Amino acid sequence: MKLASLMHGRDGRLVIVSGDLTRATDAFPVVATLQGALDDWDRCAPRLADLAESLEHGSVPSFRFHEHDCASPLPRAYQWVDGSAYVNHVELVRKARGAEMPESFWTDPLMYQGGSDSFLGPREAVKLASEDYGIDLEAEIAVVTGDVPMGVMPEEARGLIRLVMLVNDVSLRNLIPNELAKGFGFLQSKPSSAFSPAAVTPDELGPAWKDGKLNLPLLAQVNGKPFGKPQAGVDMTFDFGVLIAHAAKTRPLVAGTIVGSGTVSNRDADGGPGRPVAEGGLGYACIAEQRMVETIRHGAPKTPFLRFGDSVRIEMKDAAGHSIFGAIEQEILPYA
Amino acid sequence: MKLASLMHGRDGRLVIVSGDLTRATDAFPVVATLQGALDDWDRCAPRLADLAESLEHGSVPSFRFHEHDCASPLPRAYQWVDGSAYVNHVELVRKARGAEMPESFWTDPLMYQGGSDSFLGPREAVKLASEDYGIDLEAEIAVVTGDVPMGVMPEEARGLIRLVMLVNDVSLRNLIPNELAKGFGFLQSKPSSAFSPAAVTPDELGPAWKDGKLNLPLLAQVNGKPFGKPQAGVDMTFDFGVLIAHAAKTRPLVAGTIVGSGTVSNRDADGGPGRPVAEGGLGYACIAEQRMVETIRHGAPKTPFLRFGDSVRIEMKDAAGHSIFGAIEQEILPYA
Repeated sequence: MKLASLMHGRDGRLVIVSGDLTRATDAFPVVATLQGALDDWDRCAPRLADLAESLEHGSVPSFRFHEHDCASPLPRAYQWVDGSAYVNHVELVRKARGAEMPESFWTDPLMYQGGSDSFLGPREAVKLASEDYGIDLEAEIAVVTGDVPMGVMPEEARGLIRLVMLVNDVSLRNLIPNELAKGFGFLQSKPSSAFSPAAVTPDELGPAWKDGKLNLPLLAQVNGKPFGKPQAGVDMTFDFGVLIAHAAKTRPLVAGTIVGSGTVSNRDADGGPGRPVAEGGLGYACIAEQRMVETIRHGAPKTPFLRFGDSVRIEMKDAAGHSIFGAIEQEILPYA
Repeated sequence: MKLASLMHGRDGRLVIVSGDLTRATDAFPVVATLQGALDDWDRCAPRLADLAESLEHGSVPSFRFHEHDCASPLPRAYQWVDGSAYVNHVELVRKARGAEMPESFWTDPLMYQGGSDSFLGPREAVKLASEDYGIDLEAEIAVVTGDVPMGVMPEEARGLIRLVMLVNDVSLRNLIPNELAKGFGFLQSKPSSAFSPAAVTPDELGPAWKDGKLNLPLLAQVNGKPFGKPQAGVDMTFDFGVLIAHAAKTRPLVAGTIVGSGTVSNRDADGGPGRPVAEGGLGYACIAEQRMVETIRHGAPKTPFLRFGDSVRIEMKDAAGHSIFGAIEQEILPYA
């Protein structure tokens, strides 16, 4: 089942979307919003699945689905925590600044509490006051959970994953060093994120979804050119079950909690840092990683961060080449 | 106007509470939940204020108000960011571990993104798996905002404060060092917070509310004994307008965002670290601060963190000695 929230009020209008993302039908006979569905999932999910089946059969009224009419599936959420499950990425960050990564990072996930109150729509511009912030995309996978009890174990947590999405976790690289040095984590350096038009139940992903990982390439473009195509199921040190369990160690997580994977990042075939797509590599899911690799290889970064007028696109395709979640496509613009 | 959310479903049932906290009337004719009121404040606030006036006059049906029936005013919120506005507290933290505090901390607020999805009710026990976490209270003031535009200035931000509350920002001291060393801020070390039974409009506070600060003593008890009574308006380096502006530098804040002051903390009359209440001082709003002062004065901390069976109480009284927000009163219990 694929779900989307059309732009409407603060929480959007929930629709069920056909598998090929061409048509949609209103979820209103069951529930008005995605948060409403997550709040009462056991009652709503089977009814929404029935509607999804009827939509595929053409046996309910439907309308053309346009990705650009979408808000993020949860336009505002009660929680957004983002892991850093691709430890390869973290190791590169450290390497680029000449620091050792603690061995514990391979067993104890990094995760930050993000702002969840004001997500951008998947086609909404990223508006910021200054290019000097060092604007970067971060292409990631994210899951939406049901109610998660405190102290949940990873295996049980995997069963509490309701939906899967893509996310652009916009990051302001030049604000990060000062903010992290203060010791309290990210705040100003993480502006509003944007999620894919569709949120998809794990069963919809077929065999690509396994053991809390999504085994498909995550496609990122910058200014219309291929930028990255790392395999989201590869080099993911912590699966989503482990990430959810980490978040829930000392508190329950309410239904509708969004848990991110962190920037998807693959090692190169030779085990070293990944190469750019143009050089036959899998590329990157954020510019910072490309700059780190440039620093490691050539002594200094050369790829600039995003400037006003630049655009990013994040998407994932199934084995047959069809878009699964629709595309996040955002322009970077000045905030007046 | 005083508002509270009686325990009911996921978002509570909004009631208007009399100034003396003895009686309440349903807000349902206007709006069902506090988040609903905040989403549509311009329409709801005058109508709720009318109901509040009728309640004082006895001209609407009302019922006895019991604080122990309350959830937190927003049982789940879209955002909770917590500042560290009492820089005195931060300086003591550093001093106790022999570190210098950067001079910039006096001008650039510390603030962390907290979990907002699962707040405890004001009388709900703090349940945790282990006493070894180093369980501590943090008594603070918090405000609830309306919609805040990105890049707001402090003065405008002060005008966007809709409600004021108290908060117990429960902290797990022994998990903090490892978590902060990882660099991504608090996550497991900050379990669910609890807020006061009533949330109060700034005008209800009279002259005690001035320039984004609340000029009254914040009363904290541990196991029924006075633990702290610091003046919340004193030594608050950053008022709530500055804190809101800090949070909104690179993104808008959605209505219902909760912004905390951080642990209230006063210097002693002689300018040095505060003394315990038992020694004639103003005491502390968290045990960690008492332990820091013990470390600075005697070389080692002696006051233990909270243990199962311990209780904390946080309250604030007006000039006439009446409770303004009702009391947060929580027992610490093992989580099964």
